[in-house]
Amino acid sequence: MPGRAASPGPGAIFLLTDYGLQDEFVGMLHAAIRRLAPLAPVVDLTHGIPPFDVVAGSRALVRCAPHLGPGVLVGVVDPGVGTARRPVALGCPGRPGPGGPTGPTRLVGPDNGLLLGAAEVLGGVVEAVELPRPTRSVTFDGRDVFAPAAARLWAGEPLGALGPPLDPVSLVDLPSPWLASGEGWLEAEVLWVDRFGNLQLAARPEDLADAGLGSAGVVLLEHPGGQQPLVRVGAFEELRQYRAPHGAPALGLLVDANGQLAVVEDRGSAASTLGLAAGQRLRLRGAPGAPPERDPWAQEAR
Amino acid sequence: MPGRAASPGPGAIFLLTDYGLQDEFVGMLHAAIRRLAPLAPVVDLTHGIPPFDVVAGSRALVRCAPHLGPGVLVGVVDPGVGTARRPVALGCPGRPGPGGPTGPTRLVGPDNGLLLGAAEVLGGVVEAVELPRPTRSVTFDGRDVFAPAAARLWAGEPLGALGPPLDPVSLVDLPSPWLASGEGWLEAEVLWVDRFGNLQLAARPEDLADAGLGSAGVVLLEHPGGQQPLVRVGAFEELRQYRAPHGAPALGLLVDANGQLAVVEDRGSAASTLGLAAGQRLRLRGAPGAPPERDPWAQEAR
Amino acid sequence: MPGRAASPGPGAIFLLTDYGLQDEFVGMLHAAIRRLAPLAPVVDLTHGIPPFDVVAGSRALVRCAPHLGPGVLVGVVDPGVGTARRPVALGCPGRPGPGGPTGPTRLVGPDNGLLLGAAEVLGGVVEAVELPRPTRSVTFDGRDVFAPAAARLWAGEPLGALGPPLDPVSLVDLPSPWLASGEGWLEAEVLWVDRFGNLQLAARPEDLADAGLGSAGVVLLEHPGGQQPLVRVGAFEELRQYRAPHGAPALGLLVDANGQLAVVEDRGSAASTLGLAAGQRLRLRGAPGAPPERDPWAQEAR
Repeated sequence: MPGRAASPGPGAIFLLTDYGLQDEFVGMLHAAIRRLAPLAPVVDLTHGIPPFDVVAGSRALVRCAPHLGPGVLVGVVDPGVGTARRPVALGCPGRPGPGGPTGPTRLVGPDNGLLLGAAEVLGGVVEAVELPRPTRSVTFDGRDVFAPAAARLWAGEPLGALGPPLDPVSLVDLPSPWLASGEGWLEAEVLWVDRFGNLQLAARPEDLADAGLGSAGVVLLEHPGGQQPLVRVGAFEELRQYRAPHGAPALGLLVDANGQLAVVEDRGSAASTLGLAAGQRLRLRGAPGAPPERDPWAQEAR
Repeated sequence: MPGRAASPGPGAIFLLTDYGLQDEFVGMLHAAIRRLAPLAPVVDLTHGIPPFDVVAGSRALVRCAPHLGPGVLVGVVDPGVGTARRPVALGCPGRPGPGGPTGPTRLVGPDNGLLLGAAEVLGGVVEAVELPRPTRSVTFDGRDVFAPAAARLWAGEPLGALGPPLDPVSLVDLPSPWLASGEGWLEAEVLWVDRFGNLQLAARPEDLADAGLGSAGVVLLEHPGGQQPLVRVGAFEELRQYRAPHGAPALGLLVDANGQLAVVEDRGSAASTLGLAAGQRLRLRGAPGAPPERDPWAQEAR
Repeated sequence: MPGRAASPGPGAIFLLTDYGLQDEFVGMLHAAIRRLAPLAPVVDLTHGIPPFDVVAGSRALVRCAPHLGPGVLVGVVDPGVGTARRPVALGCPGRPGPGGPTGPTRLVGPDNGLLLGAAEVLGGVVEAVELPRPTRSVTFDGRDVFAPAAARLWAGEPLGALGPPLDPVSLVDLPSPWLASGEGWLEAEVLWVDRFGNLQLAARPEDLADAGLGSAGVVLLEHPGGQQPLVRVGAFEELRQYRAPHGAPALGLLVDANGQLAVVEDRGSAASTLGLAAGQRLRLRGAPGAPPERDPWAQEAR
């Protein structure tokens, strides 16, 4: 067993890229894997990361990591392909579980910060190597470097067989998402806007509690375009019983499937309604005149 | 063998959702299945159902059901996730075949009508259970409830092991698509607009025959935007020999791959040309002055 | 072994279509394959070929072919489905490799030119059969003809068992992409615009050399919208050190992952910047006043 990183054992190869599906890029990854590891199960996490958006890719990997079984996690969002940025493979112990560590124990991708958040979820980087660069083509490391490396790791080759070791401390990292709070207020970056228009925030319920807003039934959202009350709900459809003045959809705040706070709408896109996008900073604060125990529009809607 | 529903035996897990592919939702389903049933073949039917569109999802499942081998069919279009709507698993005998029943014999998804049309194709619901709801997260039952249930059913667990039984009669159903006809006319809802712009109608060739239009070489389509002659064709490219006045594309009526009538264009989108969408009602009637045996524009185009 | 075409042996079934992913078409292909060949690995190359675009599909298959392992290659872009165009299966020896021929040795699809470019890469067509047409439905040969044929070939059935032989010379071919050159200039068609907006040209580095531009550090691109200097680079991010006048992004010319010349931008879409699309013809010539050894904007940008 190389270093302290656990053996991958049986498992899958998990892929996340910004390649999209309109071209054959993803097919080329699968074909490259299959040539070296014909029996490897391959799971496409998503290939819909916006082009070149390393931060969005990193956050998606962080969301995925706790839900994956053993195997090799490949991330490719790589605007610097072909330059001095290093192709790397990382070893992690896996995330703690009742029956011992689990989850992927090998990560493969560019050294541009994409992988480190997920590696943290998986116990941190305990071993790292630099993958040799291709000599012929330099623009498709997914096909030429990362997929073959993942196939070899899945098949049981030790990390150290793939390239010279590098100091994990030297790996490029990304800034943390914005989160700040005080008495009665909380500021958080929008981490993600999903297909349904839900706005995932860089804050969790405990952050809201720390700001003294944990028991508020309604909070006020301040955003670049104005202010908006948010009803605390447990499910999207609970918002059906509320109706904002002038027929505008009621918006809610719930704890999403990743345990993060999210601004949501029932059968609609909160992102479109508010005109907001990933990366923007929002502020939540207490709603004056709307004590926690009272739902502001419930009366008229029921 | 639980009840009268056949055993799933070897087969696949078939997935249909409105999750899209831009996020990692579908990847999470695959990862959840793989943790419990690492060897299960998984077939993605489509994840492109419009968000929240239970009716569109239901119709896609009906189209798919006759063409699937044995296994477990999972449908997730679920705007009510987290509310009182029940997560369910259903048992069906499979559809009749020359060598005995075939097709999926287990269906998994929300009790909102999504599954019942496909269940009907597969012989009807002969057994049903309510799946326990997750305690921690309530917004991603696909990952937390439906995928694990499908994996367990695929692995051979009996339906009754997954939850308490429920009366199939209590399952939520959807209204049937609109179809009406009389002497010389037929009204039908647009069931589906596909990627190519073909408009699938809630009518089959026998419905056209019942209306006395079975032998018409041309029928007249009445739609909200006007009238349009449709040439009966057997293949898209047959329309090349016709040309509407002023160079407008000729439109046709054919029997599509699901046995439904469809309004089509050759290498073009009938939906765009006519400005029509799923859910609209169209009327077909005899074309005056265009006897069945005469193709109205064939003369000038040849 | 039928004819001179090699046996497919173990391998995968590779799929490329214009079906898109919004509908269940691709799922139906997978389901049809799985019923006849439950264990066949299936690789989706892409289903994002523009609707009806046989030329785009053909070029994508040519790009894919050199990178595939053994198996069966299925291509479906088929506006003539249901007409006199023939469904075919082709046998190829595979492309030359150090350890003998490799790559897919069976190709399946419509006889409309889609497959022939890839067949050429795979050693040429040495055997061909016409697949029987379906009797019931005529609009979904992917599900009813091509997927079943691919499954049977993957499972080891000889090509001759699938239909009557046809003369490979009778197969429909497509015109070659445009490429012309003279002393100091080169004209080439845009073969492909990928998701990132890179413009792949129908020219390779040796064509540039033949035109006497092989050592030019900058070439001039003439296109319908004007002129544009292109810096020869090895990787996208090298363009960061250049800045065009007035802040316009610098564009580059590199050898892409298929060995073709491509017009590219760093973290941006060259296609959008230039307003160009696949099929257009571009001209490259020497840049006056920009000798090869000098980078025109490097001075001011560093």
